[in-house]
Order: sequence, then structure tokens, then C-alpha cells
Amino acid sequence: MKEKVAVYPGSFDPITFGHLDILSRGLELFDKVIVAIANNIEKKALFTVEERKDLIRQSVNGNENVIIDSFDGLLVHYVKHVGARFVIRGLRAMSDFEFEFQMASMNRSLNPQMDTLFMMTGKDYFFVSSRTIKEVAQFGGSVDEFVPKVVALRLKEKVPKR
Amino acid sequence: MKEKVAVYPGSFDPITFGHLDILSRGLELFDKVIVAIANNIEKKALFTVEERKDLIRQSVNGNENVIIDSFDGLLVHYVKHVGARFVIRGLRAMSDFEFEFQMASMNRSLNPQMDTLFMMTGKDYFFVSSRTIKEVAQFGGSVDEFVPKVVALRLKEKVPKR
Amino acid sequence: MKEKVAVYPGSFDPITFGHLDILSRGLELFDKVIVAIANNIEKKALFTVEERKDLIRQSVNGNENVIIDSFDGLLVHYVKHVGARFVIRGLRAMSDFEFEFQMASMNRSLNPQMDTLFMMTGKDYFFVSSRTIKEVAQFGGSVDEFVPKVVALRLKEKVPKR
Amino acid sequence: MKEKVAVYPGSFDPITFGHLDILSRGLELFDKVIVAIANNIEKKALFTVEERKDLIRQSVNGNENVIIDSFDGLLVHYVKHVGARFVIRGLRAMSDFEFEFQMASMNRSLNPQMDTLFMMTGKDYFFVSSRTIKEVAQFGGSVDEFVPKVVALRLKEKVPKR
Amino acid sequence: MKEKVAVYPGSFDPITFGHLDILSRGLELFDKVIVAIANNIEKKALFTVEERKDLIRQSVNGNENVIIDSFDGLLVHYVKHVGARFVIRGLRAMSDFEFEFQMASMNRSLNPQMDTLFMMTGKDYFFVSSRTIKEVAQFGGSVDEFVPKVVALRLKEKVPKR
Amino acid sequence: MKEKVAVYPGSFDPITFGHLDILSRGLELFDKVIVAIANNIEKKALFTVEERKDLIRQSVNGNENVIIDSFDGLLVHYVKHVGARFVIRGLRAMSDFEFEFQMASMNRSLNPQMDTLFMMTGKDYFFVSSRTIKEVAQFGGSVDEFVPKVVALRLKEKVPKR
Repeated sequence: MKEKVAVYPGSFDPITFGHLDILSRGLELFDKVIVAIANNIEKKALFTVEERKDLIRQSVNGNENVIIDSFDGLLVHYVKHVGARFVIRGLRAMSDFEFEFQMASMNRSLNPQMDTLFMMTGKDYFFVSSRTIKEVAQFGGSVDEFVPKVVALRLKEKVPKR
Repeated sequence: MKEKVAVYPGSFDPITFGHLDILSRGLELFDKVIVAIANNIEKKALFTVEERKDLIRQSVNGNENVIIDSFDGLLVHYVKHVGARFVIRGLRAMSDFEFEFQMASMNRSLNPQMDTLFMMTGKDYFFVSSRTIKEVAQFGGSVDEFVPKVVALRLKEKVPKR
Repeated sequence: MKEKVAVYPGSFDPITFGHLDILSRGLELFDKVIVAIANNIEKKALFTVEERKDLIRQSVNGNENVIIDSFDGLLVHYVKHVGARFVIRGLRAMSDFEFEFQMASMNRSLNPQMDTLFMMTGKDYFFVSSRTIKEVAQFGGSVDEFVPKVVALRLKEKVPKR
Repeated sequence: MKEKVAVYPGSFDPITFGHLDILSRGLELFDKVIVAIANNIEKKALFTVEERKDLIRQSVNGNENVIIDSFDGLLVHYVKHVGARFVIRGLRAMSDFEFEFQMASMNRSLNPQMDTLFMMTGKDYFFVSSRTIKEVAQFGGSVDEFVPKVVALRLKEKVPKR
Repeated sequence: MKEKVAVYPGSFDPITFGHLDILSRGLELFDKVIVAIANNIEKKALFTVEERKDLIRQSVNGNENVIIDSFDGLLVHYVKHVGARFVIRGLRAMSDFEFEFQMASMNRSLNPQMDTLFMMTGKDYFFVSSRTIKEVAQFGGSVDEFVPKVVALRLKEKVPKR
Repeated sequence: MKEKVAVYPGSFDPITFGHLDILSRGLELFDKVIVAIANNIEKKALFTVEERKDLIRQSVNGNENVIIDSFDGLLVHYVKHVGARFVIRGLRAMSDFEFEFQMASMNRSLNPQMDTLFMMTGKDYFFVSSRTIKEVAQFGGSVDEFVPKVVALRLKEKVPKR
């Protein structure tokens, strides 16, 4: 029987417990989940793609059902390229919902074979975003509740001192 | 390998093309999908549970991966009872989103093993609900675009003449 | 040149300054506006259709570009029946928006010749609804700021004494 | 110096940990908080006003800064009657937001001296409503995480057996 | 009788079938519609104003009821300048709604003679925005379903090769 | 008895009547309100922090219960630093709501002693933001209805001539 594979795309700059919650729930459903870092050259990232891959790798503790990759260009192309059909997205809020609805509609229009599954972010993480985490870290706030230890450490080194 | 089973709960009073779109997309992901009619005695239905089952049966044309059932009481209990772990829900609009977010959070709190997957209703069906369909049928409007032929026929017989 | 006619449907139970604001703005655009009371037998009204017509008549002071009517059944049928093509709706809030979006999509699907125009309710009226007005009146609060004098008077007579 | 008093209105049918969270945060700000049960005769309640008062009393353990009361009619009248100026409301979701925005605007229009303060319901309670609690209890689900012990007990006795 | 003229403002960078749907519906209501390109110097555009005008011109096939223009500064000033009173806007989503509600309120405050009419974007276009189109084109995806042929061609030439 | 102090943070670039409405309502509840300008170095401001302080000072006419300050870094740190526990925020729209909900949840997570109170912006100001005001001023529109006289004057001097 064919393996069920899903793509979990995002910036992951850096990965948070919110992402890891969605990822582990995705693994209950799929044989493999590809964490696919969108290499958006217009969006300035704190961590390089290689650093982000590294942080994800350490956060998933060598779980061999997680594949870590990155992609340029359109998600629909990447999904086809890896031979997957499903995309996983976490929803945190209504504003996510609307954007995601439009993207999912656009993507189904570009490739009717591809489908997007949404999971509601757990109540402990719905207010945790990579952006806020970076902001908190930048000003010396503690982010230990929101990201894995390795990410917290790298954030401390990385963020510009204020 | 164990079969992957999902529960697709709802009122289905009656089933629409919007439901069938979600159902067929769910079947791409799961080996079996249980269409589970919520037998809510407080919500007055147009069709009896038996009639609704019958309409679903005819609409899925004997697809043997679809199981048609009904349940009383809490969804979490039903899901455990049938040995499933996943629930499928279609999202049509923001107002759905909020209610579903609360229900999914409540259900995960009642049973952390259970998870809810959301799919965005296709653009041709996001404005189609069983309620509107009944209203249109009631006043002699055509519902052929929105429901299977057999449902359209039964609606015509069933709705109170105006 | 053909007259431009719009239908402005609603319950108008009773008419408020919010409705009258939308109506007068609609009259800037159309030669005639038909205020069309939806005679929804399932929704219990405080005023009869005749009383509502009467209150609208007195509120528009004999403006001959306003036609006051009522209808049963589907709006699309009524709009076709009176030979109009445009429907006017006031938007007060996001929750209106979503419902109206679905109704407008459904209506265009039932009759592609018909189109719905939305106007944003003025800032002084966005929190004024017939329902709230009735509630305020019922408990002896003043509604003079929100409805024409004649409506305020009739409300006082009509609402059950508490 | 004059005591600062706030009114915390609601149905409290029954009181939940979500309500108690808002209440205890309100007590950090005000000297007294009046928990005011809205005696809405049109909304069918599970518990009588006396029972609801009793459950609140037992849930606040004799905290003398909490006053438990009920009111008929308009909130603005009640607030003036007790000589308060502030109303506390918990926000759980966007749909709350919109309704509350309209009510707060209406109330300030009826009484410009009165003001409404909103608090965001804590993340552990945003999906907990009296309505859902009753539904869960009704079907034999456990509500111990969401309501005080005394409420859980009374719910078990009270809800119709299924 | 005086001509009815509306202004349909936007960036149109580039024009899409979504815009053309709103435009043709606006032409059912107004004698002339002025497509007015907002020349926002802070927002970096892909096409110059002249190129955008040209693409619109070719997309409307010489329909003489469409006037193509551009403006700097405030919309209220431009609307007064051309002697129009009505502005047409397409609504695609809730987030549009809120921004548009605030702009329409601000504009009525700056010029009470001016009014904004909203139309719901058709179901086939609600997920189509100039921004997404550019993104899809940039990565070699097909945009033929979403924009006129001439726009698709120019997009292919224009977007930076990746 | 200890003074009740609240922090009212924001960009105030420049202060508007909307801000002043929230401020004066906050002063009904607290003995002192600290207007705290967030010195966000990444967000380009029109007025310097000193200019913004000056405009606020002139707008509150020497009310000695208003303290004007600025802060870098995290709000939770600043609030602790000044020994306050409450933060006041104005809500203008749903999109505010969601962001504010996430920030309030994050802040309570970083400091459970801190709480955020929300007030609904008055109906005359819900569409007034510093950003829109600057845009209107920039193109020679009148902003007298939306900001104090002194702010209107400084805006005229400050905005780049077009």
C-alpha cells in the first residue's frame, strides 16, 4: 500500500511549539510529513534556511517520519514535485482563516488534485507566532514556554542586542 | 496495516453537493468515512433520520467506503465508540470557523486522542447550506445545481406547499 | 429612457433611522426604490404587515419615488416580478457581511440578471436594529434618537407592558 | 474616598470557570463587583434565578467584595439604579466582539455616563460557555474542568436524563 | 437627464477578471464608469500607470462607457473633481469589509455628498487578487483563468525571471 | 490607599480624538494614566518621540493625572517597571480584536499579574487612525474633526508637500 505523505509548508523562522503541535498531529494521520521551508527571498528572515532546517531537525529528535526540506516558487509545484497530494496548515485565528481560504481556493484552482487540510492550533499556542517570539527574545523576554530549548538558545545568540 | 477511518458528522437535512464535495475529498485521505447524522432532538428536521440516511445512500451510489450511521449524544463519545480518531468538518465561512474552533477545542479537551480536520468548502458550494436549500425549495425555486437529483425530488414532495 | 428601480427588502419591524438613511441614499441613485416587506410567516413580528407599511408611509412623508410593498416567497422571484434588477442592502457589521455574501451569491446563482448593492450603514446607526429598538422600548427606554416620532409612539402603545 | 463598583451582568446559567476568571480579574480593579443575573423571561433557563444566585454564592466562597443580584429590564437602568458606572464583559470570540460593540455603543447612547470594560477570556476558558457545558453534562460528559464542583453536581441532578 | 457616473478606484496592477466582473456589473447601473488608477507613489507597482491604463483599455475592448484615468491624492478630491458622487468597490472578504467600512466612513465624513456602493465579488474571483496573480506568474504558474489574455502575456514578459 | 495606575501604550503618531476619548474614559477609572509612547525603531514615525510627547501634553491641557512617557522593549517589562498592573487598549475593529487578543494572551503568559482592559472606541472615532489622518493631511484634506487643533497645525507643517 502506498505511503500517505503530506507537505507542511511555512517559514519556520524559527519553529515553535505551535508548529510542533500541528506536526505531531499530522503524523497521526500521515506516514510521512515533509516540513517544507518556503524560501521567500522577499521576506527577510532571522535564520538562514540551513539554520532553520537544523533547528527543526533538533526539535523533532530524529523522528524518521519527518522529512525536512525547503522550496522556492509555488507551493503547488513543490507539492507535485514531491508526489504529495495533501498540504497541512494550522489555523490560529480568523485572519489566518481568510487568507488560507483564498490560498486553498487558488491552489485547488491551479491543481485540483491537491487538497489542504486545516488543524486548529491548540489553545496553548494560538497566540504564539514566530514573529512574536522573535520580538520577545529581542527584548530579553523568556520564550522557553513557546519554543524548544535549542531554539531558545539560538534565538538568544542570534537576535540583535538592544 | 490498520484502516484509517474518519467520522464526518452533521445534520445532513438534506445532503447537498457541498457535503458530497467534502466527503469525496475525505475519501482521498481515509480508507473509510462514516457519515454520521447527529440526531439532535431539539433541532426540528425536515427529513427523518431514516430518510436522510436513504438520501445519502442514493447520493453516494453504493460507494462501499462510505458508512452511513446516526448518533445521539456527544460526538466525542460516538467517535470513541466507533474506534475512530479523526473528525472531518467543512468550513464555509468565518462564522463557521469560530464555532468550529470552540467545538474542536472543547472536544480535544474532552478527548485528547481525537482530532478534527477542516476542509474549505469549494467555491461553488460555500453559499450552499441545507437551510437555504430548504428555503429555496419551499418557494418553488430550483435547487438542481445544489443537491443530487434524488434529493431535489424528495424536497419537492416534502416541503409544505405555499 | 427607462426608469432605474431598486428593491430594498427587509422586515422593517419597525422601520428605523438606519433604514431611512439607506433608503435616502438609494434614492440618490435610483429613480424609484421599492421598500419591500418580507412577509416571513415563521418570524414572529411585532407589527402586522399593514402596520409596518403604514409606519414606513408616514416616515417617508409621501415621497413619491418610494413605493411600499410586501412579498412572500423568494426575493429573486419578487425582484423579477416587479421588473427590477437591483437590490439594496445595508451592511452594519461583519456578521451581516457574511450572511449577505452568501445570500447575494445564492441569488446570483438563481438569477444572474439580478445584482445586490451594499451600502455601509452610517456611523450613527450601525448599532441600531429593529430588534434592539423593540427591546429598549419594551423596558421603557427612550428610542427617539433611533426611530421617527410616529414609530416611537406606536412602539409605546404596542409593546407589552412590563 | 468613594468605592469603585462595577456591574458584571450575564445569564450565569450556570456560572463557569470562565466567568470566575473574569470576576476575579475584575476584583483586582474594583472594590466591589456586582454579579447581576439578567432575568430574561424569554430565554428559557435551566436553573432558576435563585438557584443561579446560590451556585454563584458557593463558587465565590463568601468573598464579601462580590455582591450577587438579579435584574429585569435594561442594563442601563439597572446600572444607574445601583449607582455604578462601569460594566465588565468578557470577550471570548469575534462574534462576541461584534455584538458587544453594538451593545456598548447603544448603552453609551442611552447613558453617556456608563462605560463598558472588556476583558479577554483566558485561553483555558475561551471555548467554555454555559450552553456547551449544559450540552456536555446532558450527555454524561465530564464538566469538572470547566465549572466549580458544586455546579458540576447540580448539573448532574438537573439535566434531563437521556 | 443627467448622466449617472461612478468612479471605480483601485491599483489595477494589473487588472483581473475579478475587476472586470465588478466593472461590467457597475455598467448595468451607471451610464459611465471611470476606472481610476490610484497613483500611490509609496506602493511599488509592477506596471507603470501608463501600462496599467493600456492593459485596462485592451481588456474593455473599446467600450465607450468606460473612462480610464489615474489620480494622485485623496479619492474624495478626485471624485469631486470629476463631478461624480458614487464610488464602486468590490468586496472579496471580511478583511476587505472592515477596511472598506472605515474608508467609506472617513470619506463620508470628508464629503457627505459622496457615497460608496459595494458589490460582492463573484464566487469565481473572490480568491483572485493582483498580488496573488503576480506571485503565480513570477513562478511560472498559469494565470489564464484569472486575467485577460493580454494581461497574461504582459505579465510573462514583465515579471523578473526566477 | 494605593493609587490606581494604568498604562495606555501606543504609537500616538500623532494623538487623535479617538485616543483622547479612550484616555478620558480611562481617567474615570484610574487615578493616573500613563500615556506610554512605544519607541519602535523599526516603524518609521512622522513625529519624533519628543514631538509626540509635546503634542500629547498640549492636547491634555496640563491634566495632572496624565503622565506622558515613552518606552523601548517589551510592554510587560515597562508595565512592571512603573509598578502598574493594568493596560488600557482601545478596540476599533475586529481586526484589532484578534491582534489584541493574541497580545493580551501573550502578555498574561509572560506576566500573569498584568491585565489588559479594552474599551470600544466611540462611534465618531472608530474610523479614525493616526495612519489615515496622516494620509488625509498629506493631500491637503482637513483633519480638524479628528485631531486637536495643535495636532492639525503641526501636521500641516510636517507632512511632505505634494
